[in-house]
Amino acid sequence: MIEVVGLDGDDTLWHSEDQFTEVQLEFHAMLMPYIADSLDPVAALDEVEHRNLELFGYGAKGFTLSMIETAIEISGGRVTALEIRRLIGLGRSILARPVELIEGVIETIEELRSMGLRLIVVTKGDLTHQESKVAGSGLAELFHDVAIVSEKDEATYQRILTRAGVAPERFLMAGNSVKSDVLPVLAVGGRAVHIPYHVTWVRELVEHESSFPTLRSIRELPAVVADC
Amino acid sequence: MIEVVGLDGDDTLWHSEDQFTEVQLEFHAMLMPYIADSLDPVAALDEVEHRNLELFGYGAKGFTLSMIETAIEISGGRVTALEIRRLIGLGRSILARPVELIEGVIETIEELRSMGLRLIVVTKGDLTHQESKVAGSGLAELFHDVAIVSEKDEATYQRILTRAGVAPERFLMAGNSVKSDVLPVLAVGGRAVHIPYHVTWVRELVEHESSFPTLRSIRELPAVVADC
Repeated sequence: MIEVVGLDGDDTLWHSEDQFTEVQLEFHAMLMPYIADSLDPVAALDEVEHRNLELFGYGAKGFTLSMIETAIEISGGRVTALEIRRLIGLGRSILARPVELIEGVIETIEELRSMGLRLIVVTKGDLTHQESKVAGSGLAELFHDVAIVSEKDEATYQRILTRAGVAPERFLMAGNSVKSDVLPVLAVGGRAVHIPYHVTWVRELVEHESSFPTLRSIRELPAVVADC
Repeated sequence: MIEVVGLDGDDTLWHSEDQFTEVQLEFHAMLMPYIADSLDPVAALDEVEHRNLELFGYGAKGFTLSMIETAIEISGGRVTALEIRRLIGLGRSILARPVELIEGVIETIEELRSMGLRLIVVTKGDLTHQESKVAGSGLAELFHDVAIVSEKDEATYQRILTRAGVAPERFLMAGNSVKSDVLPVLAVGGRAVHIPYHVTWVRELVEHESSFPTLRSIRELPAVVADC
């Protein structure tokens, strides 16, 4: 019997990765003229992001700084100040973009609420940006709690369970990342379902041997919770 | 009778503003050659920061993006890619700097704990950076809770009191910002003391007519709490 449902934010409740992909296409087009060999600007960006992750954390501001750093690096310092200004503008466009809910989210949230469940958003990334997405979703008052965290690991979920005062076996997490939303929750004794998004950030890909339900749409979530 | 003491992080438990001031001096020196009139680069930076605050929030990553934006703007696009790389390096130096506790903090925390008080850090800024400062302070296990928030307003303190399960009159907040650590706490019925740092960020200055204790050092805090 599930009491609390955890819901991931980016690419589970609202679209996110699409925007980064769009920006990366622009980044690619901007940098290609500077590159003589077969270097892929987006692969280079991914490496810089990875290198910066511990210091910058997740989110659009760190991503923007990594774009600027990569652009300077792979252009050999030839990228212009106006192009760098354009990169800041792209980062700003991610932060300013209105929240676009994923199809079926509103009805699902309402149905889960009508089942008497407490709903907690568990999302990682930039604090200000995530808060503004929760506010912009129009769903804020339907959530019992919103946990904006720097990393979704076992310790994080342990803290969330303690704060919610719920036993692990009465907690179910739903999200698009097996690495962040499923495996650490199973590891602390909770339940988890995977709702894939049409793209997954390379850093969220993981090999595993766990078994868990995979849903085609968030619309299937209430039935899964009811069956637990 | 106080049960819970809230403690601000930056410039109350550990040094912070000094680092920004140092970086601003370097920013000033870098930009001066580009400026013909009497424009002050640091004043220009402050305006850009203010303009970006809603979108970027507080913290070193938004500050770094604002430095780059200002540099491009006031140099008329003439600032070089290598100089921009240097600005990213300065931002990185803020994020990577080891935590330097303010004099008297360790003994004060220990004394407050020995008085049976629950201690909560209430700090605003970049999530990853603040978490790493709490971890780097070596004090993490002495705190009952750590609240990293995007804004310190009345709603935020209301939430913190509810989460801690404490009545406002049994909560005392201590920090270096009258605007963020004192006034909103008094407004929700809590107690607050001001512990000024030797510099205050212009955005934290505020006019007011409230009355509250001002301490010369955090070392005076246990006696004030005991007297409440």
